[in-house]
Amino acid sequence: MNSLLEKITSPTLLVNEDICRKNIQQMAEKAKRNNVVFRPHFKTLVSLEISEWFKDYGVDKITVSSLEMAAYFADGGWDDITVAFPVNIREIERINRLAEKIQLNLLVENKTAIDFLNKHLKYKVDISIKIDVGANRTGLTLEDLPLILDLVTSINISEKMNFKGILTHAGHTYKARGVKGIEKVHDSCQLILLKIKQAIQEHLSLPTNTSFISIGDTPTCSRMEDFTWADEMRPGNFIFYDVMQWVIGSNTLDDIAVVMACPIVAKHERRKEIIIYGGAVHFAKDSIRHPFLKQTIYGLVVELHENGWSHPEHKSYLAKLSQEHGTLKMSDELFEKYNVGDLIGVLPIHSCMTADCMGQYMDLKENIMERM
Amino acid sequence: MNSLLEKITSPTLLVNEDICRKNIQQMAEKAKRNNVVFRPHFKTLVSLEISEWFKDYGVDKITVSSLEMAAYFADGGWDDITVAFPVNIREIERINRLAEKIQLNLLVENKTAIDFLNKHLKYKVDISIKIDVGANRTGLTLEDLPLILDLVTSINISEKMNFKGILTHAGHTYKARGVKGIEKVHDSCQLILLKIKQAIQEHLSLPTNTSFISIGDTPTCSRMEDFTWADEMRPGNFIFYDVMQWVIGSNTLDDIAVVMACPIVAKHERRKEIIIYGGAVHFAKDSIRHPFLKQTIYGLVVELHENGWSHPEHKSYLAKLSQEHGTLKMSDELFEKYNVGDLIGVLPIHSCMTADCMGQYMDLKENIMERM
Repeated sequence: MNSLLEKITSPTLLVNEDICRKNIQQMAEKAKRNNVVFRPHFKTLVSLEISEWFKDYGVDKITVSSLEMAAYFADGGWDDITVAFPVNIREIERINRLAEKIQLNLLVENKTAIDFLNKHLKYKVDISIKIDVGANRTGLTLEDLPLILDLVTSINISEKMNFKGILTHAGHTYKARGVKGIEKVHDSCQLILLKIKQAIQEHLSLPTNTSFISIGDTPTCSRMEDFTWADEMRPGNFIFYDVMQWVIGSNTLDDIAVVMACPIVAKHERRKEIIIYGGAVHFAKDSIRHPFLKQTIYGLVVELHENGWSHPEHKSYLAKLSQEHGTLKMSDELFEKYNVGDLIGVLPIHSCMTADCMGQYMDLKENIMERM
Repeated sequence: MNSLLEKITSPTLLVNEDICRKNIQQMAEKAKRNNVVFRPHFKTLVSLEISEWFKDYGVDKITVSSLEMAAYFADGGWDDITVAFPVNIREIERINRLAEKIQLNLLVENKTAIDFLNKHLKYKVDISIKIDVGANRTGLTLEDLPLILDLVTSINISEKMNFKGILTHAGHTYKARGVKGIEKVHDSCQLILLKIKQAIQEHLSLPTNTSFISIGDTPTCSRMEDFTWADEMRPGNFIFYDVMQWVIGSNTLDDIAVVMACPIVAKHERRKEIIIYGGAVHFAKDSIRHPFLKQTIYGLVVELHENGWSHPEHKSYLAKLSQEHGTLKMSDELFEKYNVGDLIGVLPIHSCMTADCMGQYMDLKENIMERM
């Protein structure tokens, strides 16, 4: 055993800084080529230390998914933060504390929230309207255009709110497989957002070059090239990527920047299974159907070495998860190679969730980086 | 709004102490009637404050699922702890620190771990052998009897290890539905364990009344009555129960002692959906098929009030989870009753995982209780 791996005694989320930096740089360059603001979503990392890496690529505006996360990054010096989640008006005190010290950008999709903010905001915030381009989770659709214009009016006449634009997350790209599927979502998203933008511009008598379309899912931002029609991109997962994004077609397996290092606690010869210390409390429970194996998997097995990890061989995978146990189905070769007490690597299905469960990272130089 | 609910601004895991105490008392009484040791599994709670409640029912021996958890409870004064997880030999330093100060009971299922412990243990520990009675996760089966006897011999001749017995977790009761299904597993479990016990007793020339069978799943411990053939029971989930255990048949919905209180952030009239602040990072991603609704659900909606929560009406449920969002499918009545900014309750599918995600509890008197 080498020095990095020797130190690991329990499930540990390893992060490869070089791969992260390459992923950040590529996305920052794409945003620049398209002349759009790059406002990465930090819900994936939620770590002040890792957030510092983004500054080397010119990032000074960020996205988060909760006011708690906004407060964490604001305390760390980030001063232009979009909370890409329908505003939770029960947290008005936190909103006011944040709006006092940073450029806070909130998201609304109903009149109740706007009326509440208008009454209770103490400092000015930017407001975007959440648009549903087909993910059917949150946001207003083209069908709701009269309501959208009504909300724009309410925002515009409020002294506490500045209308910033429209924002969407085309989460249905997660059901796409391959570049053609992503393209289809991207094209329909563009069509809907441009229609709504035009309607709002006419409604407010704004010049046509006003900036306000913000888009954001990792598959689209990774595989599409033309974002000149938008003004801002907010991908998050791309810094780490994961097996799910690989199945969608966003990245290669070698672009994945995080791996779980797990101790082996049992081997079962008859079933060719290895039991790891590493369960649902470490990985979270996301799974995906593997395109070649035709199996539902919870992660792909890799071999760990001092400078990182191997490419997966696709025959060994995380097949089951209980609270603290993981069951690896192993190829004959890898099953023979590993023993109780060894450490083995697993590429996570959904890196955002795995990182949230783990609460901290270790880089390849053995530095521990804490999450919020 | 009342004072308890007024204070809640973000997803909060409420715990009803009275229901917990009732659940603990019932299980403690069942153990006493059967003359078996009650060694509850604390992986569900992982809270020193909640662990105190058990002392009122005579509990002084506990089970945990990791050495980290064992260290946490040992620091809190618990001094007889079983780690019901195949021993992770990479944590030998922690094992020795624990074995120095408490009665530590470890679990093995292979020779590698026994040989390692024999060489590296500094203090005496009790060792149980993990038996697989059909869950097919960890443990040795009846088929492995020669290996079991070989391990018993190795443990017995070691000066650092004391052979404590055999231990199982009949995790396949989680696939059972109703008391008949649980009974079938329980009966086959009893048969296997008694055979192995007898073989070991003959092997070691022990008297037939030697204590050493430890069993532990919540469905069995909740619904079966005869445990006189065993020596110890280790259920965990029963303190809180959850929707999954209700579907299995372990408890009624009114026995569930935890509920997630979540702010409403959006309402979608056309889909009769309510979006809550409360997603996979709060609930974890366990789901179950609802027996009447015939839908996969992630939780059941209840109405919150000052002293607890209502019985669910089964027509309103948590239908989807993303990282921070939850989508509730609502009955017409409840959809109309609730608005953006209100708080709504959701009974979790798997309380152990939800509590792990949340990291803390709030009781109905507004006390915050931290987890490890």
